[in-house]
Amino acid sequence: MSKTPTVSEYVMQRLADLGIDRVFGVPGDYSFPIDDAIETTPGLEWVVCANELNAAYAADGYARRRGAAILTTTYGVGELSAINGVMGARAHSLPVFHVVGQPSLRIQKRRLVTHHTLGDGTYGNFIPLSAATACVYAQLTPDNAIAEMERVIAEALRQSAPAYITIPQDLQCMPVVGTPLKGQPLASLKRHASAPAEIEGALAAVLGRLKQAKRPVLLPTAIIARYGLQAKVTALLDRTRIPFALSPMDKGVLDESHPGYLGLYAGEASAPAAVRQAVEEADLILDLGGLVFEDLNTGYWSDRLGDDRLVTLGTNFVHVGDKLFTAATLTDMVEGLLAGAPVFDKPALPEKTPADLVGAPDDRLGSASFYPRLQRLLRSGDVLVIETGTASAILPKLVLPAGVSCESQTLWGSIGWATPATLGVALADPSRRAVLVTGDGAHQLTANDIGVMGRYGIKPLIFVLNNGLYGVEDVLSERGHVYDDIAPWNYHALPAAMGCKGWFTARVATVAELDQAIATAQTHDGGCYIEVMIPETESQPLPRAMIDRIYKAPTPR
Amino acid sequence: MSKTPTVSEYVMQRLADLGIDRVFGVPGDYSFPIDDAIETTPGLEWVVCANELNAAYAADGYARRRGAAILTTTYGVGELSAINGVMGARAHSLPVFHVVGQPSLRIQKRRLVTHHTLGDGTYGNFIPLSAATACVYAQLTPDNAIAEMERVIAEALRQSAPAYITIPQDLQCMPVVGTPLKGQPLASLKRHASAPAEIEGALAAVLGRLKQAKRPVLLPTAIIARYGLQAKVTALLDRTRIPFALSPMDKGVLDESHPGYLGLYAGEASAPAAVRQAVEEADLILDLGGLVFEDLNTGYWSDRLGDDRLVTLGTNFVHVGDKLFTAATLTDMVEGLLAGAPVFDKPALPEKTPADLVGAPDDRLGSASFYPRLQRLLRSGDVLVIETGTASAILPKLVLPAGVSCESQTLWGSIGWATPATLGVALADPSRRAVLVTGDGAHQLTANDIGVMGRYGIKPLIFVLNNGLYGVEDVLSERGHVYDDIAPWNYHALPAAMGCKGWFTARVATVAELDQAIATAQTHDGGCYIEVMIPETESQPLPRAMIDRIYKAPTPR
Repeated sequence: MSKTPTVSEYVMQRLADLGIDRVFGVPGDYSFPIDDAIETTPGLEWVVCANELNAAYAADGYARRRGAAILTTTYGVGELSAINGVMGARAHSLPVFHVVGQPSLRIQKRRLVTHHTLGDGTYGNFIPLSAATACVYAQLTPDNAIAEMERVIAEALRQSAPAYITIPQDLQCMPVVGTPLKGQPLASLKRHASAPAEIEGALAAVLGRLKQAKRPVLLPTAIIARYGLQAKVTALLDRTRIPFALSPMDKGVLDESHPGYLGLYAGEASAPAAVRQAVEEADLILDLGGLVFEDLNTGYWSDRLGDDRLVTLGTNFVHVGDKLFTAATLTDMVEGLLAGAPVFDKPALPEKTPADLVGAPDDRLGSASFYPRLQRLLRSGDVLVIETGTASAILPKLVLPAGVSCESQTLWGSIGWATPATLGVALADPSRRAVLVTGDGAHQLTANDIGVMGRYGIKPLIFVLNNGLYGVEDVLSERGHVYDDIAPWNYHALPAAMGCKGWFTARVATVAELDQAIATAQTHDGGCYIEVMIPETESQPLPRAMIDRIYKAPTPR
Repeated sequence: MSKTPTVSEYVMQRLADLGIDRVFGVPGDYSFPIDDAIETTPGLEWVVCANELNAAYAADGYARRRGAAILTTTYGVGELSAINGVMGARAHSLPVFHVVGQPSLRIQKRRLVTHHTLGDGTYGNFIPLSAATACVYAQLTPDNAIAEMERVIAEALRQSAPAYITIPQDLQCMPVVGTPLKGQPLASLKRHASAPAEIEGALAAVLGRLKQAKRPVLLPTAIIARYGLQAKVTALLDRTRIPFALSPMDKGVLDESHPGYLGLYAGEASAPAAVRQAVEEADLILDLGGLVFEDLNTGYWSDRLGDDRLVTLGTNFVHVGDKLFTAATLTDMVEGLLAGAPVFDKPALPEKTPADLVGAPDDRLGSASFYPRLQRLLRSGDVLVIETGTASAILPKLVLPAGVSCESQTLWGSIGWATPATLGVALADPSRRAVLVTGDGAHQLTANDIGVMGRYGIKPLIFVLNNGLYGVEDVLSERGHVYDDIAPWNYHALPAAMGCKGWFTARVATVAELDQAIATAQTHDGGCYIEVMIPETESQPLPRAMIDRIYKAPTPR
């Protein structure tokens, strides 16, 4: 850096050093010097989203693919709109750096009343709210900016969780005091470290169990992606030949064409059904990252893994038998296993074939005809983004083709997430095609970012399943309630209304129409937006008996 | 009530007793019994909004016109999305009852992990966040529901601020314990009470000052509407003949055709300019409700009211000279003044005329030609909803015709508020026409509720000013930044894309086109949506020297 950077410039440069190249957000007063610094920082580009919640979702999508993201909003009105999105990033262990402007200290110290406040001359009201979405918080000054940024970055990466950074407007423009630091790209950083005695003990215990095992299985979770361990875990699978399954939350974290892939494990909702037996009858179940025993992730708590067989390698702890080692990191454990785990016989697994293509050309579309076609159109490099709802109940059961990954929000489950998340996923790696599958109800929450996709020239392939209602809610709430109906949008007209140029759009109701639209989309050089008419009665993705566990009398685990 | 109501049914019935007839929200699991109760409660109707933030804004708009509103969202993902909107209701003193479902206690007490959580088996994480938007919070049980609802309603109305109510899903379905109470309509309630000695002292002091005054003025604030005091304040103006001014925040709270109306008071931004002198040179300035000395409300803190001349009648305190009476309510003070205030000579005020109609038919539109036409199309009964931005900087200076009121969000200033607020305003009184003026940047945040307007058959008149950027931000951030540009929507195509039937839509760029579109809209029986092309360079609503006070070196008051 030739000149001393301002606090804003330093923050953005230091975050860009991690390898982040986009900033999602909405500009606003109290943040203009931050907004300016994004414009002038080499390697960073602005992505102005339609609103702050959408920006937070987009940052979430980007962080899933790049390891971290930057979100910027303004004081009060901006940051509070983003809270749900950032809380989702927290639930899904994503380091999203949320940088927020505040009124100048010149205003705060005089207790002047400004807009975007409660009119009471106080300025700390909103800090606890945004801070609750983050694992670390700093209010920057010229004097503390250099040191605080090191702390904030280290902690966000260590915990893999959002960080909240505030800067009063006058301080945003002031040069930092001290010598600016140059950071390293995220991939080159060691993000967490073990205590030597703990990792030694944990590794010995787990290796000991592995050496006694006859039929072990691995359950890699999305957390391995958060710590950049996908290649090492794949190497571990390759070397040891231990078969593995993925839970719905963890879908897509490893290549599902891997010869050791069993399929989806979710208790009695496992797919194929035989995966349940393969996992639950293993004599050692090695959980990499900490499986989340959430209702939708476990077939409504029907998992039966057994404390004696389950060994958990958490982010920073290892639970094996009656021992719990702390300060033993997942990274060190994966590396230790890669070096020391025994090799097993190659399992004989059935070949994975795509789902049957059902439906005659003139048939009305339904889930049975739509999803297998979706599965077959995916090609290596695609990133599938699955909205919470009918899609997230059905899609995880289908095996993804080689080279295809996917993202969903099975824990936080905030409907509307997927549309802006697709923007973030697409911008994280423009060489990959982002394929979004969303329902009409969810899409209405955040569809205004379709215009943002058009503005920034991304070329997603979007399927909006139109059944005229909140499909999953209609099932859960026992059907027929007026509140499950939604406004009757003409979805395929949205891209043009929102200024997208060169997009292919279609509304399809029959199998032949869908096939034709897919054929066009597969070769179209531009965004594609296909509205898929699916009859209301088709949306029955969940067995009632399972649902009743959550709404009526849940079975204790 | 023929049978004992469930907790959900009781909550909705007790709130409906206040005279609320709509519930804004988004249904969701953990809330279904609440959602069902809304459907079955006599006198209540569901308004399913496109997302929770929009629902909160709509509830805000409804509460402004009806005195209170109900908002319902679900646990975590739903309620957190609404936080910014409810915080805005708090800033603007609006009793919005925010009813939120939670996972069953049957789940919570077993520490099962469910969706819409952080996956940690804890269930109290989000309560402090939503509670921070409210003046009162209750978690209901069958046992406490009757008593708690009395407390919650009383406090929300006393403080005129949001209330936050949570109910675990299993308890939502259980009958209340005790005898259900029947409530009274809001207008018939005494919302706050004074301590006798305080109100007596306060009234005597203020009447004493009034009797000594030669040239008093009144500054009624929006707070008089919150406590239903508009008719009494109008009677006070009629009887005493004291002239009055309104600040930008308080615009529209009283009829501006009143003979005593001076105009807009906002320090050096007063309009007409002579209002400044009339107010600041008065020998007694009676502030009814507590003027908010916010930057945009005071011409960037250029107000000069003088502590010796300013007498403040707050919601529950009176500041007169060196005395501060507490527990002296605005309602009692207004009633006391109405009974005891002296009568003054009728002031000789210049007649108020609408702004000149400028622009030849073929001229490109600009602010100078648009706003006077807007002013003239307003007719008695209209409610004008003004979005924050260019519109809120220009419109308050124009006098509203007789019978026209308006709403804006000059303190909280969350862009995007006005579109869903218009939905709420329209549903609060379907006999009035809601007229929305918004900018393109703000509209993009929340335009998805246009579809909701169509679904519920409301017939607003909407103007979207399209200059292709965040106009006011472009001014504030000193122009030309890429982050002030927005996606190039074809706004007039939105109503059709969002399924609105029978709407008149147009895009206008010249004076003649605007005149023609207005003529059509004035007689069209249906929603009207007019996209007004305003050149980028037209958006200079604020003098730079004023702006610099906030961003550079604010003048102390």
